[in-house]
Amino acid sequence: MGIRKIQSTLLAAALLLLTACAGPVLRGTGDLGVIIERATGSVQIVDSSKLVTISSVKGLGDLSHASLVYSRDGRYAYVFGRDGGLTKVDLLRGQIERRVMQAGNSIGGAISQDGQLVAAQNYAPGGVKVFSAETLELVVDVPSSYGDAGLRSKVVGLADAPGNRFVWSLFDAGEIWVGDFSEPMKPRIEKFKNIGIQPYDGLITPNGRFYLAGLFGEDGMALVDLWHPEQGVRRILNGYGKGEEKLPVFKMPHLRGWAVAGRYAYVPAIGRHEVLILDTETWLEAGRIQVAGQPVFVIARPDGRQVWVNFAFPDNGNVDVIDVEKRSVVKQLAPGKAVLHMEFTPRGEAVWISARDDNRVVVYDTANFAQRSVLAAESPSGIFFTSRAARIGF
Amino acid sequence: MGIRKIQSTLLAAALLLLTACAGPVLRGTGDLGVIIERATGSVQIVDSSKLVTISSVKGLGDLSHASLVYSRDGRYAYVFGRDGGLTKVDLLRGQIERRVMQAGNSIGGAISQDGQLVAAQNYAPGGVKVFSAETLELVVDVPSSYGDAGLRSKVVGLADAPGNRFVWSLFDAGEIWVGDFSEPMKPRIEKFKNIGIQPYDGLITPNGRFYLAGLFGEDGMALVDLWHPEQGVRRILNGYGKGEEKLPVFKMPHLRGWAVAGRYAYVPAIGRHEVLILDTETWLEAGRIQVAGQPVFVIARPDGRQVWVNFAFPDNGNVDVIDVEKRSVVKQLAPGKAVLHMEFTPRGEAVWISARDDNRVVVYDTANFAQRSVLAAESPSGIFFTSRAARIGF
Repeated sequence: MGIRKIQSTLLAAALLLLTACAGPVLRGTGDLGVIIERATGSVQIVDSSKLVTISSVKGLGDLSHASLVYSRDGRYAYVFGRDGGLTKVDLLRGQIERRVMQAGNSIGGAISQDGQLVAAQNYAPGGVKVFSAETLELVVDVPSSYGDAGLRSKVVGLADAPGNRFVWSLFDAGEIWVGDFSEPMKPRIEKFKNIGIQPYDGLITPNGRFYLAGLFGEDGMALVDLWHPEQGVRRILNGYGKGEEKLPVFKMPHLRGWAVAGRYAYVPAIGRHEVLILDTETWLEAGRIQVAGQPVFVIARPDGRQVWVNFAFPDNGNVDVIDVEKRSVVKQLAPGKAVLHMEFTPRGEAVWISARDDNRVVVYDTANFAQRSVLAAESPSGIFFTSRAARIGF
Repeated sequence: MGIRKIQSTLLAAALLLLTACAGPVLRGTGDLGVIIERATGSVQIVDSSKLVTISSVKGLGDLSHASLVYSRDGRYAYVFGRDGGLTKVDLLRGQIERRVMQAGNSIGGAISQDGQLVAAQNYAPGGVKVFSAETLELVVDVPSSYGDAGLRSKVVGLADAPGNRFVWSLFDAGEIWVGDFSEPMKPRIEKFKNIGIQPYDGLITPNGRFYLAGLFGEDGMALVDLWHPEQGVRRILNGYGKGEEKLPVFKMPHLRGWAVAGRYAYVPAIGRHEVLILDTETWLEAGRIQVAGQPVFVIARPDGRQVWVNFAFPDNGNVDVIDVEKRSVVKQLAPGKAVLHMEFTPRGEAVWISARDDNRVVVYDTANFAQRSVLAAESPSGIFFTSRAARIGF
C-alpha cells in the first residue's frame, strides 16, 4: 500500500488509541462521597480514604437545600435541586449522566429498596414524582391533593421503607402517606389524616419499621409503625415545650440524618436549646440534653457512643459532641462559620463537617477530635458518602 | 521511512491499542459480591443487581471454611483460606492482586476500622497476624501464647471493633484478647482469662460495643462490654441446656453473621434444635424458638423482621424463616443439598443461599419467598457482598 495510506492509517490508529484509553481510572466506589456546593450549583466528588477531592461537576442548578441519594452500585448520585432539577451524576467519570427539570420547587428525595425507583418530593406542584433510576423517565406522579378545594400540599419527610415503599408527609394537610411501589405504575397509597399541624420533616428508624414526622405547628411528633399500619398514627413527645416560650426558629431542624444509638433516639427540640431523648421501646421521652443552641442535625456516630449536633443561627459555628452514657456534652468544636452538615465515614472513625461561610470542609478523627484534613469548597452544604446506598431510610 | 519500518510501527501501535484498551468495564462496586467455591479453590464475582456472575478467579488454594473481608473502597476482597493463604482479589479486574501464605492452618480474619490493617486468625501456628491491607506485608504478629508451658492456642472469633481494635478468643486457653492497633507496630493487648471452656466462635454487636464468645465446652456465652472492659467478662445464657442430653454436634454453629433484630439477639443453641433469644438490654434469655435442626447460621434480614436459619447435617437441606414478632417459623424452604451460607442484599429485598451439593446458589425474594434466580457454582460455600465493608464487626 502507498505511504500516504499507511500514514493515515497510522494516524487513525494513534487517535483511536488516545480516545479509547483516555477513560477514568478504575477504582472502587465504596469510599467515595459528594459535597454539595450550594452557591455555585456544583458538587465535589471526594475520596474518604485519601481525604482528597477527585473531581468537580458543574451545572446542577440551584443547590440550596439540595440532597441526594445513591444508586445501588454506588456509582451514581441522584441530586435533588431546590429548583426542581434532578441530576444523575456519574462519580467515576466526574460528569452529569442525565438531568431533568421535574418540578418548580423541590426538597429532596429517596431511592427504593430495590434501587429501581428514584422519588422526588415537591413543594410546587405539590406531590411525589417517581422516576426510573436508570433513565430518569417518569414512572408515576402522585399529586399531594387533599381536602375538597382541589389543593395540593407541600411534601416533606420522604423516606424509603422495606417492601419497595416510600413514606412522606403533607405539610399543609397534616397527613402521612405510605406508598407501596411494588408495582411501580400502580402504587397502593395508604393515607393517614389529622396526624398533627404542619409536619415539617420525617425520618424512618434504621430498621425501616417506624416513621416519625416532626410537627412544626405543635410540640410533638407523629409515629407510624409500618409493621402495623392498621394501628394508625400515634402522637409522641406531646407538648414537650408546654408552658414555656418557644424561641424564634431561624432554621428548621432536619430529622433525616437522625440519631438512634442503641435503644434511644436523639431528636432536636424545636425552638429550644435541647436534644430530646426518645426511648424507642416505649416512645416516651427519656430525658433532655442541654446544648449550645437550637439543634439542626443530631447525628449518632455509627457505633452509637457519641451524638454530634450542629445548630441554627446564631450558634451555627459550633458543634457539640454528646456522650450517650453521660448524657451530656463532652466536647465542643468550632469547625468554621455556618456549619451546615456532618457526615460520618461508614464505620465512624472520622466525620466530615461543612462550614459554608469559611468555604471549607473539616475532617475530624472521632476518637481524639484531631483535625485530619481541611478541604476547600465553595459554600459547602450537604456531604453524602456512598455507603448510604446500603442503608434503609437514607 | 521504509515500508517495513512503517508496517512494524503500525503493528506496534495496533498491539498497544489492544493491550491498553482491553481493560475491564467501568462500574460501581456497591452491588458486587463474592461466592466461595470451596472444592475448586476459586471464587465467583457476582452482581447482585443483575443477578449474574461477572467473573471467576482461580488459584486461591484450600477454600474449605474460607471467609473474606472487603477493602474500604469495596474493590478488593481479602480471602482467608484454610491452608493459611491470604489472597487479595481485585473484583474489577477479576484477578488476584496479591497472595501470601501466612500460616499453616487459618480460620478467617477481619479488617480494621480505618481499612489499613487486615488481620488473620490462625490455628497453627496459633495467633493473629496483622498485614498491610495495601501490600499484604506483615505489620505485626501476635502469638496466642498462654500458660507456662509455652503453648499456643487456636484463635477463633476474630472481629473488628471501633478504635481500630481487634477482638479474638483463644479456644484452648479459654481467653478473650482485645487488641488496640491504633499504633499498628505496638498493639496494646488486654487479656481476659478464665472466660469459659473452649470458646469456639465470637461476634460483635452491630454497634461494636459488645463482644460475645460462644462456648463449646459448656452451655453459655462470655460477654465483654468494650465500652467498659474494666468490668471484665460476664457469663450469660449459663446452663441453657441444663439437665438435658446434648445431641451429637456434627457442625459447629457460626456466630459471625449473627442476628440482632431491634432489642433482641438470636443465637444458635449448640446440640439442640433451638434458637435462643437474648435480650440485649439485660443479656438474659428472653425465649426459645423450635427449628428444624441444629442451627448453623442465624441471620436477621436487614430490617430485623425475619430471622433466617440454616442447619447442620442431617437437616442441612432446609432453611427456616422466623417471624420475630410471632417468635415462630413462618416459612420453610429447601434451596438444595447442603445449605452452607446465606447472605442478604444490603437493604434486604433478597437473600442469596448456597447449596453446596447441588452446585448452585439460589436467590430468594424475601417479601414473597419467590425464587428470583439460580446461579451455577462449584460447591459454593460462603457468599459475601461488598456492603460488608461499611459495617462494624463484619
